[in-house]
Amino acid sequence: MSTDLNTPPAGDNDPGRGFPVSEFEARLSRAQAAMAKTGLDGLFLTTEPEIRYFTGFLTRFWLSPTRPWFLLVPSDGKPVAVVPSIGRECLAATWLDDVRSWASPQPEDEGVSLLATTMRDMFPHKSRIGIPEGPETHLRMPLGDYRRLHALLPDIEFTDAADLIKNLRMVKSPAELEKITHACAIVSDVFEAFPGILTAGMSEVEIFRRFKIACLERGIDDVDYLVGGAGPGGYTDIISPPSLRRVGAGDILMLDTGAMFDGYFCDFDRNFAFGHVPAETAKAYAVLLDATEAGLQATRPGSTCADIYRAMQRVLETDYPGGSGVGRMGHGLGMQLTEWPSITPKDETVLQPGMVLTLEPSVDLDAGRMIVHEENLVVTADGPVLLTRPAPKSMPVIPG
Amino acid sequence: MSTDLNTPPAGDNDPGRGFPVSEFEARLSRAQAAMAKTGLDGLFLTTEPEIRYFTGFLTRFWLSPTRPWFLLVPSDGKPVAVVPSIGRECLAATWLDDVRSWASPQPEDEGVSLLATTMRDMFPHKSRIGIPEGPETHLRMPLGDYRRLHALLPDIEFTDAADLIKNLRMVKSPAELEKITHACAIVSDVFEAFPGILTAGMSEVEIFRRFKIACLERGIDDVDYLVGGAGPGGYTDIISPPSLRRVGAGDILMLDTGAMFDGYFCDFDRNFAFGHVPAETAKAYAVLLDATEAGLQATRPGSTCADIYRAMQRVLETDYPGGSGVGRMGHGLGMQLTEWPSITPKDETVLQPGMVLTLEPSVDLDAGRMIVHEENLVVTADGPVLLTRPAPKSMPVIPG
Repeated sequence: MSTDLNTPPAGDNDPGRGFPVSEFEARLSRAQAAMAKTGLDGLFLTTEPEIRYFTGFLTRFWLSPTRPWFLLVPSDGKPVAVVPSIGRECLAATWLDDVRSWASPQPEDEGVSLLATTMRDMFPHKSRIGIPEGPETHLRMPLGDYRRLHALLPDIEFTDAADLIKNLRMVKSPAELEKITHACAIVSDVFEAFPGILTAGMSEVEIFRRFKIACLERGIDDVDYLVGGAGPGGYTDIISPPSLRRVGAGDILMLDTGAMFDGYFCDFDRNFAFGHVPAETAKAYAVLLDATEAGLQATRPGSTCADIYRAMQRVLETDYPGGSGVGRMGHGLGMQLTEWPSITPKDETVLQPGMVLTLEPSVDLDAGRMIVHEENLVVTADGPVLLTRPAPKSMPVIPG
Repeated sequence: MSTDLNTPPAGDNDPGRGFPVSEFEARLSRAQAAMAKTGLDGLFLTTEPEIRYFTGFLTRFWLSPTRPWFLLVPSDGKPVAVVPSIGRECLAATWLDDVRSWASPQPEDEGVSLLATTMRDMFPHKSRIGIPEGPETHLRMPLGDYRRLHALLPDIEFTDAADLIKNLRMVKSPAELEKITHACAIVSDVFEAFPGILTAGMSEVEIFRRFKIACLERGIDDVDYLVGGAGPGGYTDIISPPSLRRVGAGDILMLDTGAMFDGYFCDFDRNFAFGHVPAETAKAYAVLLDATEAGLQATRPGSTCADIYRAMQRVLETDYPGGSGVGRMGHGLGMQLTEWPSITPKDETVLQPGMVLTLEPSVDLDAGRMIVHEENLVVTADGPVLLTRPAPKSMPVIPG
């Protein structure tokens, strides 16, 4: 089945994959400088973005929970990978020199004793090893095995390194920025062309499929995240999968997508009206665009996430004094769909050039309905630069 | 851009979404029977498949690591959800009666005190609460917050419930089976039609995109997993993303996909030859098909995963005595791309009707090249039933 998009052949606008070794050397060097400051002898990492950040290892295989993967980052020298046998060659093909593996799956000893031996080799007696334990982190290995590791290394102190990882990953390199920019550009094209694909009477399920296909045809690798919905004048849910309900006159459709290019996300949404834009919706949409503009104006190096929040909130509160269940008005973006920081009144993270953020205000109408809007930007020394092509001033209308 | 697939309009073959309440009642009843046997007062769950299993809550929002989600399953009565504000309405729309939420994000207390209060309400003094700590599990909340929870509830004993969860989830209900069957049927169609889309000179990146598009057009919701590769006579890597290399004469292409319908996966692969099938490849392929058939013959209620492994290994070892880095010859399948059990010589899991498995033998050629093959089946009282349309006896050849 063909879409109405006049697309270039898939893959032909692909700007290339991966990073030069210098990228990983720079990341390691920043990490080791931070470790020196906080008195850490190493980092112990188990999660996909962290391991990819230091190695470049990109795979969808993380979807399988069977095998854990481990990376040890010393305070001096290159990281050492301890990985299941199926990944040995992949890690050996990265810039790492020391890759150790065990025959896996092997639930009775799923890498734990090899990991302990490797840590004994790498780290002196009474080392302090950082692991991410703070907000937005988790441990991607069985808790029982983590306890066994502690028992095998009783003199090693494990301590929280969430802030260290957060501070590293929040600021994107030019090479990382290029990938996010590419994802944003492709999806901006798709959203712009999408009214040509939408027709009244399509089900949400079909609309979601057509959107994913359009992203793939334009050069996106994976549309990992697509949520949204449609309803009269607004929608009641912004995180659910599509329903079989057919969209028709008076409905407002919102699509919010995290689409990936080479392991980096965009994350923004667009609204579409079927037949006409009800007055209350048009007003909400205009206020959201104004709030986004106010957020942009407040975004500069040295100001904080809370500053951005307050600037947006000042615009919203006149007409929409109630809060919203979304809980924030934007967030960091990069290797994950959402990353630190959060645009909340309490987040005092100071903006630095290279940070990529979403601005995502929302307003509640009655009957549980809401309207949301989202753009992506990068902080530069000269202020914010939008990575998304801004949403149209008036909501696009699909003939109803 | 159009594909060559003669597809029905997307969504028209959609058999419907979700489950009746009776499905969740049955799951809860099985869980509570198992809790009674093991002396547990409740389960504490943080991970996507487990929370979805007991509630039906399906969302891509888990991609955002910012907010944890909690489900408490008591030994008597319905589960209680403790969730961030953004998900309150979604959980309230499930069959649950008691949904509690906190204003999130709120990193200084990301649900922990509400969770502790709720557990105090639900569970008596000195309760034993099961949490999954064993193989293939992880804790999806910050370690620091988990430690805080323990400190708030010093008299509650947390104990491993991985086996309980595994035994519940391994056996699929007829309604779950229907979704997996549907995903397998769609992707079988796609693989069968795919030679009509492949042409020599396409890059791996383009081939992967065309495959994902074909799956979506036929009714798949998301192609979360697609790995594979191509190379002369075989491929050297089975977990990496596609490269920009163009596939041509003499290459063997393998695509291995985990494609989802309504939250349930298929997971199988197919091989394609460009120009011709080299003799060593043809032999490996024939042996893999024989090994799969032997695995099928060994699959019946009462036999074990190790029995299946040995049956397949007997076929492989004559011509391919070396092992393989893959480490197993199949696994469970359902809400996750891979689930317990594993087809290994040590896994003594006894097969029961309703278990869904992949059979996935692989052989190593020289120079790091390999050939893999995979089918999906369900165990029934009468033996195995294939969910995938079996791969052709001879590898399909694309004009090179």
